[in-house]
Amino acid sequence: MSEVEERMDDIPPLKFLSAANKDALKEFIELKSAIMAEGALSSREKLLIALACTVAVKCESCIEIHTKEALKNGITMEEILEAASVAGLVCGGSGFSFASIVLEVSK
Amino acid sequence: MSEVEERMDDIPPLKFLSAANKDALKEFIELKSAIMAEGALSSREKLLIALACTVAVKCESCIEIHTKEALKNGITMEEILEAASVAGLVCGGSGFSFASIVLEVSK
Amino acid sequence: MSEVEERMDDIPPLKFLSAANKDALKEFIELKSAIMAEGALSSREKLLIALACTVAVKCESCIEIHTKEALKNGITMEEILEAASVAGLVCGGSGFSFASIVLEVSK
Amino acid sequence: MSEVEERMDDIPPLKFLSAANKDALKEFIELKSAIMAEGALSSREKLLIALACTVAVKCESCIEIHTKEALKNGITMEEILEAASVAGLVCGGSGFSFASIVLEVSK
Amino acid sequence: MSEVEERMDDIPPLKFLSAANKDALKEFIELKSAIMAEGALSSREKLLIALACTVAVKCESCIEIHTKEALKNGITMEEILEAASVAGLVCGGSGFSFASIVLEVSK
Amino acid sequence: MSEVEERMDDIPPLKFLSAANKDALKEFIELKSAIMAEGALSSREKLLIALACTVAVKCESCIEIHTKEALKNGITMEEILEAASVAGLVCGGSGFSFASIVLEVSK
Repeated sequence: MSEVEERMDDIPPLKFLSAANKDALKEFIELKSAIMAEGALSSREKLLIALACTVAVKCESCIEIHTKEALKNGITMEEILEAASVAGLVCGGSGFSFASIVLEVSK
Repeated sequence: MSEVEERMDDIPPLKFLSAANKDALKEFIELKSAIMAEGALSSREKLLIALACTVAVKCESCIEIHTKEALKNGITMEEILEAASVAGLVCGGSGFSFASIVLEVSK
Repeated sequence: MSEVEERMDDIPPLKFLSAANKDALKEFIELKSAIMAEGALSSREKLLIALACTVAVKCESCIEIHTKEALKNGITMEEILEAASVAGLVCGGSGFSFASIVLEVSK
Repeated sequence: MSEVEERMDDIPPLKFLSAANKDALKEFIELKSAIMAEGALSSREKLLIALACTVAVKCESCIEIHTKEALKNGITMEEILEAASVAGLVCGGSGFSFASIVLEVSK
Repeated sequence: MSEVEERMDDIPPLKFLSAANKDALKEFIELKSAIMAEGALSSREKLLIALACTVAVKCESCIEIHTKEALKNGITMEEILEAASVAGLVCGGSGFSFASIVLEVSK
Repeated sequence: MSEVEERMDDIPPLKFLSAANKDALKEFIELKSAIMAEGALSSREKLLIALACTVAVKCESCIEIHTKEALKNGITMEEILEAASVAGLVCGGSGFSFASIVLEVSK
């Protein structure tokens, strides 16, 4: 939990829960750990799925954070662009628009 | 293109475009092929990403179709549930609600 | 206002406001009249725009009602399909899925 | 936790997590408890806020479950209709359409 | 109506309607008054419900305006954070991300 | 295709697809051409429908681009405001908030 907490101020959902409800913060981090853990799918695959979902829900700060997290975990920009493209296919022109946010992060 | 066309009546977006605009149908199928093709990510990974995005955008018929397509391509229910869980994490209680649609398809 | 009220039970937003808040029902109907009135755009064009927006917001009952209302006002199925196609372009595969609901209404 | 678990099969997000990931189910229930607990706002107020949010996110099964849960906790239909009306104000015609689902539940 | 009008330029929906359609502006303000009026729920409860719904619909400027309006009406930041937390529960990680916007306003 | 490509860097969905997948870029442009072509509805009507849909899907950069594109094609600000108003009617207060973005573009 330590690394996540250190970066907490840069991660809006954690920053919010830290201010709003410490118990909920703890449970949300544990929920995230339970879901993102290596399983039938690898952690790397789950990071790419999460990134694509942030494009699909049109959440700009979520896209930025998940792109950074993916890059930090050794996922390549090429893989990120392909995952974001799939989200765009499901979401159309507005999806490809939000997908373009991943390009800003890589700069 | 033949297999997709045969199943067209069961796939709402293709059924719609077939009735509305044959040129757009052709381009949409080609756009889908270009995006879903094996690349830095495998087709299997892209199918799982697409499935998770349909949960994220709260489209019931999309979830059903992508779950069936995933199963048909040898993806296991365990993998599908993990992909849908990641979508749920991004989308909360309402996301887990829509994720439950994948359970109906497996019956 | 009379014709709208007669059909109120078949129109979910009006049925809801009729049960919840008669003042709000009256204001919502007047808001709708003010916005849908003939202006720089014709009523027919506004009906088509409204229909496309119901596809974009993924509201099944809204799509059904606006398709029926468009047909009743002399708009052709061909025009409806084109308006729904534009919504699909903005919204991708999930948009074309919801667009397919207009095909059910025409039956 | 027992009462929630008994009703689990009728509550899509819990049914899904029960099938997908028992750890995540436990954490989600604890996250929900942490957030819905009596605090600066009462549990009753939080139930009404949650109900309004399910209308805002256009999740039909969520609206049904939260309406039932509110009624079971002694919240009146009049209060439910007012909470759903506020969601409708934020979400427009499509919001009032989804709000009408609360009327089905009360039957 | 006077106070609302004075602040109109800072409130995007009113600014838009003022430019687009004065009749619709008047009806929207009356619709808002009819729905937000003291009733089975208090005005204070309705302000909190509206705030939570703006988080649920992912509208940044709406969250800012409703947070300011709540603070101006004597609602505490603690109450605002709890209402936003409930929205986050319904909407997941992306919901908690948008909820963090209320923290910016309080600064 | 030349004019679209020249402006590509200012249009997020095209910029994204240009970086992510050249084949998909080509197919998306052809899909757009097939759907936006003069038909039962005029190109002008389709531009207005697309603009309204970008408001409905709450995509800020999409609204900016479609407003500019509409103005460039001889559509008046009055017509744009009416189209955006219809989107607002379907989408409520949060819809009118996003509609206000068209006012920024006209400056």
